[in-house]
Amino acid sequence: MRATFMYEAGDVRVQDAPDPVIEQSTDAVVRVLRSCVCGSDLHPYHTLTAADGPVPMGHEFLGTIEETGSDVSGLRRGDLVVAPFAFADNTCEFCREGLHTSCPNGGFFAAGVGGAQAEAVRVPQARGTLVKLPTDVDPELLPSLLTLADVYGTGYHAAHQARVRPGDSVTVIGDGAVGLLAVLSAKQLGAERIILMGRHKDRTDLGRFFGATDVIAERGEEGIAKVRELTGGHGTRAVLEAVGHMPAYEMAVGAVRPGGVISRVGVPQYEDAPVGFRSLFGPNVTLTGGPAPVRAYLEGLLPAVLDGTVDPGRVFDRTLPLEDTAEGYRAMDRREALKVLITP
Amino acid sequence: MRATFMYEAGDVRVQDAPDPVIEQSTDAVVRVLRSCVCGSDLHPYHTLTAADGPVPMGHEFLGTIEETGSDVSGLRRGDLVVAPFAFADNTCEFCREGLHTSCPNGGFFAAGVGGAQAEAVRVPQARGTLVKLPTDVDPELLPSLLTLADVYGTGYHAAHQARVRPGDSVTVIGDGAVGLLAVLSAKQLGAERIILMGRHKDRTDLGRFFGATDVIAERGEEGIAKVRELTGGHGTRAVLEAVGHMPAYEMAVGAVRPGGVISRVGVPQYEDAPVGFRSLFGPNVTLTGGPAPVRAYLEGLLPAVLDGTVDPGRVFDRTLPLEDTAEGYRAMDRREALKVLITP
Repeated sequence: MRATFMYEAGDVRVQDAPDPVIEQSTDAVVRVLRSCVCGSDLHPYHTLTAADGPVPMGHEFLGTIEETGSDVSGLRRGDLVVAPFAFADNTCEFCREGLHTSCPNGGFFAAGVGGAQAEAVRVPQARGTLVKLPTDVDPELLPSLLTLADVYGTGYHAAHQARVRPGDSVTVIGDGAVGLLAVLSAKQLGAERIILMGRHKDRTDLGRFFGATDVIAERGEEGIAKVRELTGGHGTRAVLEAVGHMPAYEMAVGAVRPGGVISRVGVPQYEDAPVGFRSLFGPNVTLTGGPAPVRAYLEGLLPAVLDGTVDPGRVFDRTLPLEDTAEGYRAMDRREALKVLITP
Repeated sequence: MRATFMYEAGDVRVQDAPDPVIEQSTDAVVRVLRSCVCGSDLHPYHTLTAADGPVPMGHEFLGTIEETGSDVSGLRRGDLVVAPFAFADNTCEFCREGLHTSCPNGGFFAAGVGGAQAEAVRVPQARGTLVKLPTDVDPELLPSLLTLADVYGTGYHAAHQARVRPGDSVTVIGDGAVGLLAVLSAKQLGAERIILMGRHKDRTDLGRFFGATDVIAERGEEGIAKVRELTGGHGTRAVLEAVGHMPAYEMAVGAVRPGGVISRVGVPQYEDAPVGFRSLFGPNVTLTGGPAPVRAYLEGLLPAVLDGTVDPGRVFDRTLPLEDTAEGYRAMDRREALKVLITP
């Protein structure tokens, strides 16, 4: 088959690779119908060394079951399925609590498993991981259904962990796909005021479509001042941080109301951060978030996608064939594209 | 009157001071019946410079109303009252949400107001701050009622912010008065397993009396290993951190279960701490806590103290007259006393 590998920073290639096969009785092989490039794929695109490459790329996909291992019940060849970006058994104590990202039998696609920016992918723990979709689904819905694999569930995790509730005030930091879908999620959970911090007008316009009531283009102290100006001086009860860099963390600390919550889903590109009396402790601010257990939200978010109530697939603003995946990375890295959909 | 001042680290003096008077119409003057020395008073006892002294000391007290300002309704001369360590108007938006420590009209005793290790103290925002007690209360209950001013409410805040619930597993780090009352609070909220980390046997024995099911004397990696051993390898869902030093934070990170909560009430003696993928983010751990809005809990905790269901006053293991307050500091600093009660 054809599959995408990153050799080192900036060097993405689509090449021949062995067809995936069932390795364990709990595996399935899925033929990929739609995959995409993630904002988090840009981290290795900036930093991967040749010594660490080549690595298979892609962790968001939907497709049809091609083959199942002997212990995979409930799934058949031809079923249309979507997978969360982390596979999991969906039966352990952590999965039962909705924390699939801590499943002891779970893991991530790509390294050691295979990537989804490919014609087919092996799915470990297939029974727990894959969620069946209606086989006759309108192809127009495929982009929105694909967001359930990661960016929609991740944006939702941010809002869910912050316990966003009706009437709430929320700041969303970051106008990438996750930030925009955090806006959509906050709106779904009833937030009344949603301030989106971002400075790409086409993106923040989409944020307004998803429910943002205010947009702030300024950053740093200036951005914090704007949030405070809009909120009677105190900031918003929830801040959803969908970037992962230290300046975004600092903005979150500045924009959150005393007693409020900072919920992070941008993968932190730092280990230490201010949490003492002057930042979190003094004003009783809660810090939460982490890798989204997308599987836990998938079935709950699905109906509104299927009936068209929400349209998270609007985050895809470019579609490329698998052979041109490298161009997708380039376009996202240059901010020419918000999120790139990959077709076979 | 006589009142306690700290001149510099290690130098505590009881001396003559002007009697407190009503300065604002919302003030009251309270004659102190019981006050005490706080673990947090030991921070300046170690670090205060002569240039920053002398400062009036003490923020925990109960006593009788001596005089009230013209805007203080509902309180009369002779009423027995207890005060939370932070005064507040109890009417602003933050107070209404139970976050009295962020009240814009609030503040702390001592600097600028006067200390409670004295014969009398001025109480700003008296109507919002002071809580009336039955005038005929059994004097035996005064120590327990005094803990409502700080250490009990602070321990309770730790458990409350961690959302401790029936059947829960909890680790409490620190066997000072706050840690021990965090044990009591976790027990009250229904925790099934309460692991107390501390190494002073008389204190951890009191912790067992309050509800600890396990005691771990080890610290650092060894202490973490013990917690994990007791909890099937994963740690406890909640960790209540009642120390404030970095090693306690690191133990909390090591002892918390994925998806769990670290709730801090020990005043952090650091500003930056690990919060990235390897510490909090990867396992979706929540960090919460801060200065306890004791006023928010006071009326809820009061009935069980009055009817003797709980006996938080057991944390006082020494009583000294006001004139000997300096000896109270010395005894607590040397760990000869857990918490020192001061009588007039």
